[in-house]
Amino acid sequence: MTPIQVESMTKNTRARLALDAEGVTKLIDEQFPQLHATGRLIHVVDVAPRRARVRMIAAPQVIRPGGTISGPAMFTLADFSIYVAILAELGAAAVPAATASLNINFLTRPEAKDMLAEVKILRMGRRLVVGEVELNSEESGEIVAHAVGTYALPRTG
Amino acid sequence: MTPIQVESMTKNTRARLALDAEGVTKLIDEQFPQLHATGRLIHVVDVAPRRARVRMIAAPQVIRPGGTISGPAMFTLADFSIYVAILAELGAAAVPAATASLNINFLTRPEAKDMLAEVKILRMGRRLVVGEVELNSEESGEIVAHAVGTYALPRTG
Amino acid sequence: MTPIQVESMTKNTRARLALDAEGVTKLIDEQFPQLHATGRLIHVVDVAPRRARVRMIAAPQVIRPGGTISGPAMFTLADFSIYVAILAELGAAAVPAATASLNINFLTRPEAKDMLAEVKILRMGRRLVVGEVELNSEESGEIVAHAVGTYALPRTG
Amino acid sequence: MTPIQVESMTKNTRARLALDAEGVTKLIDEQFPQLHATGRLIHVVDVAPRRARVRMIAAPQVIRPGGTISGPAMFTLADFSIYVAILAELGAAAVPAATASLNINFLTRPEAKDMLAEVKILRMGRRLVVGEVELNSEESGEIVAHAVGTYALPRTG
Repeated sequence: MTPIQVESMTKNTRARLALDAEGVTKLIDEQFPQLHATGRLIHVVDVAPRRARVRMIAAPQVIRPGGTISGPAMFTLADFSIYVAILAELGAAAVPAATASLNINFLTRPEAKDMLAEVKILRMGRRLVVGEVELNSEESGEIVAHAVGTYALPRTG
Repeated sequence: MTPIQVESMTKNTRARLALDAEGVTKLIDEQFPQLHATGRLIHVVDVAPRRARVRMIAAPQVIRPGGTISGPAMFTLADFSIYVAILAELGAAAVPAATASLNINFLTRPEAKDMLAEVKILRMGRRLVVGEVELNSEESGEIVAHAVGTYALPRTG
Repeated sequence: MTPIQVESMTKNTRARLALDAEGVTKLIDEQFPQLHATGRLIHVVDVAPRRARVRMIAAPQVIRPGGTISGPAMFTLADFSIYVAILAELGAAAVPAATASLNINFLTRPEAKDMLAEVKILRMGRRLVVGEVELNSEESGEIVAHAVGTYALPRTG
Repeated sequence: MTPIQVESMTKNTRARLALDAEGVTKLIDEQFPQLHATGRLIHVVDVAPRRARVRMIAAPQVIRPGGTISGPAMFTLADFSIYVAILAELGAAAVPAATASLNINFLTRPEAKDMLAEVKILRMGRRLVVGEVELNSEESGEIVAHAVGTYALPRTG
């Protein structure tokens, strides 16, 4: 596929997004002000149709002795990132979307570095959304964890 | 099965435990002093062969607006509780055991109350341990989440 | 708890079941006649509120060389058994219930013997049902696999 | 990344494969002759480092009334396809690799058409392999299921 085609496809599909990265960030800040109580660790980098990219800063709160990122921090990043992709696609109406299940595989012990989550929505149903997410150690690019999550959407009037 | 048999079986198998609840707590405190940096939220209540019971206090850090327990806090409790059962069974040699995967189902929105995790080890292999855990809201007794985790044991010399 | 209490609890709750084991079997035979095309391998043993017990016969179709039960046969048994518990609870209206996800852990290599599935429904929601199932080798009683499945219920008018 | 780089990377890494598609097929035919007892439904299309592509023919045995592919058939395809990728990478030494767990999400009801499985190995450890697989309906190209599997490798001398 040539660059020019990619460009135009991006334009077309991007038009379907309810919110861009900035819009998602603003919505989350309004809805979940407590999220950043101990500092802003998680940043929405980019969103695209059925995709999101989210960074977690390797702050002391998520680092474990021995110089690695804690499992719960990786779970939080994976879960949050899929939620970001859902909000980008559906907008504020999807704020009540709830995690129904999450299956996470820890693949390799990560270094204590920033982590980048790459989300791909596998199914955007009317009631259920299924998304997968790869967590990569940003410096090495190595995949350190992989998760698949299922989210129940709020009922629409 | 008659009560007297249950009694003797309990004695026999309990003898196989490497550590009791106090021993596991002490080991974890030594190995992971940072765990209680923001207060001691998670308490080992009881251990038995292939079983563990662990309580998480509904402290402000795990409560979300709207009066519920956060998903990452439940993930942390589930993961930690299976680890407790492994330590009770195998002792200090199992400290390097690492979560390979965890599949968690969120069943109902929990109240902002203490949570009790009930672990059952399904398989205690030489290389892999599989455990399941039910998370119950302690006041109502209602099951709020269920998880199955796989743990890789350290290689033995 | 005394036997007489168990008895009366069973009566009360059993009253809530839409179908008993025979009723579920008849419904499945009508709806899925092809299921037994190669012989009747799977039998509903018993149902109770949020519970089901289902047996799979160790017929040649499910046995693998080396004398074990095939993984796909265990998946089929796990999935079918949770479906049985849903039908017992909700009746014919739940026939269109569809497996949304299934997470199965293979714990030990089973012998080529009949297998007994023990289902427990963890959540019976209006839109989603979550059930867990233990697969036991009937002769040894050993647990050989464990699964958790999520099912989407048909929309009600 | 320019085409010429892709080319040379492919050459380098392809050199690491123990078996090509034909070699994997031959090995499986020798080791599991019963697999094709009812006809050859599953075909290894292509393998590459940490990748495999496998097709399942929409034969009557895998079709359900209403014109869809059965869940167990999709489980079988997902499980088999990851196994193919492992054999391609490691060769005959990996024949005893055993499925430890498999998490499958059924995304949409497939048509009764051939299905193509696309495998990506997420982690190739010394003891554990983790792979993900997308199942696509070949005609529409639509993703109908997604699975993540964990495999225990045989101990090496």
